[in-house]
Amino acid sequence: MKRREPEPQVDDILRLHRGGKTRMTSRLRLDTVQRLRQIYTPGVAEVSRIIEADPDKLYDYTSVADTVAVVTNGTAVLGLGDVGVRAAMPVMEGKCVILMEMVDIAAVPLLVDSHDAAQVIEAVAAIAPTFGAILLEDIAAPVCFEVEDALKERVDVPVFHDDQHGTAVVVLAALISALKIAGKRAGDVRVVMNGAGAAGSAVARFLLNYGIADVVLCDRAGAIYRGRTENMNPVKEQIAAITNRANQKGSLAEVMPDKDVFIGVSIAGAVTPEMVRSMAPGPIVFAMANPVPEIWPDEALEAGAIAAEDGRHINNALGFPGIFRGALDARARDINEEMKIAASSVLAALAPEGQLVPDFMDRAVHRAVADAVAGAARQTGVARA
Amino acid sequence: MKRREPEPQVDDILRLHRGGKTRMTSRLRLDTVQRLRQIYTPGVAEVSRIIEADPDKLYDYTSVADTVAVVTNGTAVLGLGDVGVRAAMPVMEGKCVILMEMVDIAAVPLLVDSHDAAQVIEAVAAIAPTFGAILLEDIAAPVCFEVEDALKERVDVPVFHDDQHGTAVVVLAALISALKIAGKRAGDVRVVMNGAGAAGSAVARFLLNYGIADVVLCDRAGAIYRGRTENMNPVKEQIAAITNRANQKGSLAEVMPDKDVFIGVSIAGAVTPEMVRSMAPGPIVFAMANPVPEIWPDEALEAGAIAAEDGRHINNALGFPGIFRGALDARARDINEEMKIAASSVLAALAPEGQLVPDFMDRAVHRAVADAVAGAARQTGVARA
Repeated sequence: MKRREPEPQVDDILRLHRGGKTRMTSRLRLDTVQRLRQIYTPGVAEVSRIIEADPDKLYDYTSVADTVAVVTNGTAVLGLGDVGVRAAMPVMEGKCVILMEMVDIAAVPLLVDSHDAAQVIEAVAAIAPTFGAILLEDIAAPVCFEVEDALKERVDVPVFHDDQHGTAVVVLAALISALKIAGKRAGDVRVVMNGAGAAGSAVARFLLNYGIADVVLCDRAGAIYRGRTENMNPVKEQIAAITNRANQKGSLAEVMPDKDVFIGVSIAGAVTPEMVRSMAPGPIVFAMANPVPEIWPDEALEAGAIAAEDGRHINNALGFPGIFRGALDARARDINEEMKIAASSVLAALAPEGQLVPDFMDRAVHRAVADAVAGAARQTGVARA
Repeated sequence: MKRREPEPQVDDILRLHRGGKTRMTSRLRLDTVQRLRQIYTPGVAEVSRIIEADPDKLYDYTSVADTVAVVTNGTAVLGLGDVGVRAAMPVMEGKCVILMEMVDIAAVPLLVDSHDAAQVIEAVAAIAPTFGAILLEDIAAPVCFEVEDALKERVDVPVFHDDQHGTAVVVLAALISALKIAGKRAGDVRVVMNGAGAAGSAVARFLLNYGIADVVLCDRAGAIYRGRTENMNPVKEQIAAITNRANQKGSLAEVMPDKDVFIGVSIAGAVTPEMVRSMAPGPIVFAMANPVPEIWPDEALEAGAIAAEDGRHINNALGFPGIFRGALDARARDINEEMKIAASSVLAALAPEGQLVPDFMDRAVHRAVADAVAGAARQTGVARA
């Protein structure tokens, strides 16, 4: 297994990004005054009256039903951190391109210039009627939790923080595949994780909801446990309450022994081959620190891992396109746990022989995720179509 | 002159609007993993770093430079009033189509779900970094004034309430043409107006800035004058201070006599042929109430008007496309009075023989407006390119 793929060339990258990667377009030609009078005054008044009388008609006669806002405040951009909201724009456009190209969703990048949770919430809630769903992206913890929770309460379309839930969906998909290879059942499996930011806490919660026996989540201060006082916050308190059944204390190295699975969303080099060797037989290692993992997959395999991946394959780009396509197809009011688990299950089921997850470039995969997610939305009563 | 053009057919209109009139698109194909790694992680990080180091590079490597937000809160939609923000969406999309089709601007419709000026201001200011300019539309007075004033202070790209300034630009263009026909000079001309909402007060101010000798602005309570107490507000107080030199009082009919120009942005039938006959010789009548004017142009001409138009030709769609194209071309920080007057002047100059303004469908007209506006931006120091 190669440790590194060749990096893209800067000149090529800049050429591709010049002038932006997204562009709003008109679906109609405007070539006669008659057409103007149909799409603008006076004709458009008829359409406004229809929507005023029946707001659901917004989905028939405007772009809203098929349009997603990709929203950031630029505070946790890739591995770069708080680069400022403007420097996040190329990433948001990239995410929009993925949605448009892979699942034919019209995706609008939207920068929200505030570090304050309340301001972000107010701004996004105000503009929400323009969109069929809202994808939150690259917003730092803990603001991301407060923003998502409040918006899910206030907005009647799906709100989904991809760094949390998109990551969780793809990690679970890979884990389902890996457990099959290892011949282990979810209900018997104990997981140790490193990294308690947005992704880490969401992955931990999602694995427990799926039925994984136990998760011990570590941050820089080591295992998070009930009664810990150092480096805690309300989200970590919640995590402490539902994880770490044995209430283990100590460093990552100290809690790794006898665990079945390691999942890293932390920093380069946090895991050594010795730590992998301390795990239960047939360990599974997902080391997703970006761009350099906690341990390279080939090192983990050499240390005895039965399956090992870094973040190139366990990439949330496998999840969010189909999840949003399915949510829009069902006109869902929310993206709930059942919809996310449906996405993970179908991703695991579609992994080719010898891989934990399917290929991102296979559009049929995203279509299958969408269908599973829309089905789960209908079964759980959050669909409007 | 025909009083009415045939109305567009409802079936045709609904067919055209189905699924929306705008659609965000990708400018790149995503067909290989290599391309994914160029437009998204890890390659996109290079572009983010460049913009973080030099925020002006946002204009080179993202869609921002060529993208305008078309923003409403749905409180003054066409002649329909406060239809709710969702029912305004077809109108916003229509405006976006005009910008995209006539001047190749990427225009994003954006609904802001609030009647409160402060909330609208906060939401639009927060998302402003996403856009090269902001077009405010169909926001009721007096909230529209407060919103525009605050955003012009806070945001470093042009903010332009089209119902006010777009209307004013096109009215001035038509007036320049009509005064030429009438053989009158702006500095000698006295105007009477009916309708003191967003459009009326903006037109009055703009005509005075251009050099029109005097304007008397009427609302339902008659002429607005210094010392009036009935039906006043802060904007009307400002209007009273700068208009109506003779401080005339009384109804529209009572202040019409001896005026050179009538401009109506009010209600159907507010002007009678007798009132036109009371005006100074060679009266000019722009009756723009929508959809039925204050007086039909043919009635005004029969009553002695030397030029008469309704809102079909004096339409702000003649103004805003070129104004925004020019502002973006110059990367202007603002759209100032000089830029608007440049737009009016070129529109008047390009009116074909026998018309007061040029044809909307002529893209060369919008291009000429853009060039004039960009030139004025550079001359007045608000251009960044």
